[in-house]
Amino acid sequence: MADKLFDLGMIGIGVMGKNLLYNMADHGFSVVGYNRSPEKTAALEQGATPNTDVKGVNTMEDLVKMLKAPRKITLLVPAGKPVDDVVGSLLPLLEKGDIIIDAGNSHYTDTLRRVTELQPKGIHFMGMGVSGGESGARLGPSIMPGGDREAYQHVKAVLEAVSAKVNGEPCTAYMGKDAAGHYVKMVHNGIEYAIMQMISEIYDLLHRGLGLDNDELHEVFKTWNEGELQSFLVEITRDIFLKKDDKTGNRLVDMVLDKAGAKGTGKWTSQDAMDLPVAIPSIDIAVSLRTLSAFKEERVKAAAIYKPVIEKIKADKKQFIQEAGEGLFFCTIIAYAQGLALLHNASEELKMDIPMQDVVKIWRGGCIIRSSLLEQFYQAYRKNPQLPNILLDDQLSGLVQSKLPAIRAILAQAIRSGIPAAGLKSALAYFEAYTTERMPTNLIQAQRDYFGAHTYQRIDEEGIFHSEWDQ
Amino acid sequence: MADKLFDLGMIGIGVMGKNLLYNMADHGFSVVGYNRSPEKTAALEQGATPNTDVKGVNTMEDLVKMLKAPRKITLLVPAGKPVDDVVGSLLPLLEKGDIIIDAGNSHYTDTLRRVTELQPKGIHFMGMGVSGGESGARLGPSIMPGGDREAYQHVKAVLEAVSAKVNGEPCTAYMGKDAAGHYVKMVHNGIEYAIMQMISEIYDLLHRGLGLDNDELHEVFKTWNEGELQSFLVEITRDIFLKKDDKTGNRLVDMVLDKAGAKGTGKWTSQDAMDLPVAIPSIDIAVSLRTLSAFKEERVKAAAIYKPVIEKIKADKKQFIQEAGEGLFFCTIIAYAQGLALLHNASEELKMDIPMQDVVKIWRGGCIIRSSLLEQFYQAYRKNPQLPNILLDDQLSGLVQSKLPAIRAILAQAIRSGIPAAGLKSALAYFEAYTTERMPTNLIQAQRDYFGAHTYQRIDEEGIFHSEWDQ
Repeated sequence: MADKLFDLGMIGIGVMGKNLLYNMADHGFSVVGYNRSPEKTAALEQGATPNTDVKGVNTMEDLVKMLKAPRKITLLVPAGKPVDDVVGSLLPLLEKGDIIIDAGNSHYTDTLRRVTELQPKGIHFMGMGVSGGESGARLGPSIMPGGDREAYQHVKAVLEAVSAKVNGEPCTAYMGKDAAGHYVKMVHNGIEYAIMQMISEIYDLLHRGLGLDNDELHEVFKTWNEGELQSFLVEITRDIFLKKDDKTGNRLVDMVLDKAGAKGTGKWTSQDAMDLPVAIPSIDIAVSLRTLSAFKEERVKAAAIYKPVIEKIKADKKQFIQEAGEGLFFCTIIAYAQGLALLHNASEELKMDIPMQDVVKIWRGGCIIRSSLLEQFYQAYRKNPQLPNILLDDQLSGLVQSKLPAIRAILAQAIRSGIPAAGLKSALAYFEAYTTERMPTNLIQAQRDYFGAHTYQRIDEEGIFHSEWDQ
Repeated sequence: MADKLFDLGMIGIGVMGKNLLYNMADHGFSVVGYNRSPEKTAALEQGATPNTDVKGVNTMEDLVKMLKAPRKITLLVPAGKPVDDVVGSLLPLLEKGDIIIDAGNSHYTDTLRRVTELQPKGIHFMGMGVSGGESGARLGPSIMPGGDREAYQHVKAVLEAVSAKVNGEPCTAYMGKDAAGHYVKMVHNGIEYAIMQMISEIYDLLHRGLGLDNDELHEVFKTWNEGELQSFLVEITRDIFLKKDDKTGNRLVDMVLDKAGAKGTGKWTSQDAMDLPVAIPSIDIAVSLRTLSAFKEERVKAAAIYKPVIEKIKADKKQFIQEAGEGLFFCTIIAYAQGLALLHNASEELKMDIPMQDVVKIWRGGCIIRSSLLEQFYQAYRKNPQLPNILLDDQLSGLVQSKLPAIRAILAQAIRSGIPAAGLKSALAYFEAYTTERMPTNLIQAQRDYFGAHTYQRIDEEGIFHSEWDQ
């Protein structure tokens, strides 16, 4: 049917899939997009940059026939059953050595299952995280592929071409075995949840507490984005405060309902961390505060009963803003620390061989949690790829330590003012517990042994002990 | 083989199973315990109260033969495969109408599966939570049976006889359909995790912060246990501080290693709450702090790097102890509030028809989280069985409100001192977020819509909206 063979195929040409496909075509790769509807594939072809090789097809048979061997087919379909359905339809059409790349947000255990099921059939299944949103997919995302190393060699060139670049280096690299790509992306999103929660709490402190208006908030975040806090999330927050609402003339952020969902990758990160187990309380609390936000009707009732009063912050404005910035910086580092510690431990536990220095290297650009901090984490893992927690790095520890007074100052103020700041509080508590030789968990162990004979260990002797505590 | 038929059978005669069996026999029921080993069953018979009907058998065939129809067989074996194995062995021996009662800590989804599998075979499978530890099982636990109501009628009498009593009322009741019994027990344990974490943090504040020694701590908890804080966990904590270590002559609590595990019911509570979803941050953080405690080697390294200094609490000693008690009381209520809200929502979502007033009624005695607060919760649910959150109850709201200054005072002090208090902080933050009409989650929704076109809702209009935020 086709005279020439194409480099890559794509199933799922929604916004993300289409943008990624155009991005590939813009970099000189010839690509085919599949959709059942001729209108959609016609639109796909029409939207492509002139003189690029973008073709639409309406059957999977055509898609497969038109691709060079080994065929490289990327899926950008919703996680779960749709992925299995597509794989099931593709399978009879494929040949040994062909490569399916799932670029959606699949749960890593699904990816693991698919890798295992397809391996005996000679089909490579790769799980690949893509971060950067719509515009990232079009212009340069951070790409986290994992799976078979041999299959990776076949897609390396195109991924490096289309990914974001930092200092000329591509924001993509091989993330490890099996489902490593999706695992890394899951944790990326968990960190994203935590940082977004923390920024929202800083906003709460500056807005309800200190009384800043949207213009002032814009200025604060603008200044922050020019310093050590430079990051994509701070940058877009800066912009958000300026956006006008066409309908009311107010700022749009003030018209947005305070209800968020918590399904998906953030939740998975917390649930999986509990299984390992690794402590990531600031990600957990970001998930749970999104959940609480959705109980809006109850919150309105509770507010009517308790009539909470926010005590205005009377501190020196400039100094408080300074401390808020440093406090956010401290907590952001803690959010990364928890997520990266999870990755480090999961990599060992699940035998994924995740190269930590490459993870933070490719997060430096393209992805939602890109920030100037990533360069410092990259240097830390280059020194010690087996670093169990970035808080143990010499360089970073000094930086973290220097921000302690600021985070303590703003949290003491949050408590006085009645502002929840749950994520920021959890970050400080995590830091203090992590850096404590002696947690009060000895009491918990004593209680458990008291009522349930669960036994305990001693500080001065190896072994497992049980005592009659009431005697 | 046997001349007479017995009332109940038990598979799994470890400490919990044996104690529960003796408890039944002491109340006039004739019971048979199964274990493959003749030594174990001989020991079972020998340990029984004289003139009670306790028989040991070494085959399941004998066990089944010796029971009155419908047979009532309780399992107290480890959760997971052992339960399936026992059920598989029993099944060919049973008749329609027989009842298997799983009294272990099975995951409720396993129970649900077993209920569904056994239903077509005419076998009733009940999931039943038992709380009270070893001595509770022997002398009167809180018992949480769920499943088929018809089957429940057959075990009601024995459960009411052996359970703890409060004001002459048994601490057992029908907990709802399907896996409700195990669900209620799971959440019971989640609340238990949170309260234990909170008590350990108060201990941390009073010990490392205020400098109280074990005798003083004993006195504090003794006084607390005589007032509004009266509870099993405060009571045993009081005792723990007095217990001497035979080996060193120190107090034993000081010799216990600060490493706890976090597998099982606490973790399940958090993971399941995230799926529903319902926010239970104080349970989540209790799970994650237990996990962090187990990273002892890393913590020792981190302590060497950061050299944390605990700033001694200089507040008036008596007043600070007073505030610590009130703060603990506040946070304990929040722990219950989160767990009970989870139960309320799960009951609806999973169609379990859990009678909330009975849950808190039977938790008043026998179980690990029994406390004088349960009576107040019981009154609240009697007034409104559909209460979505106990914080919305008129009576309780006044009480909670009155403790706010105390929890704020001790947490401000915790932050000054560098004491983590993660659970206490999460409780205050939960309260403040739950009672806030306007959370800062509008910013999170704006961010999500900005980078991912995830859409948002508005405060002034129904519908789903998307905006181009950078224009």
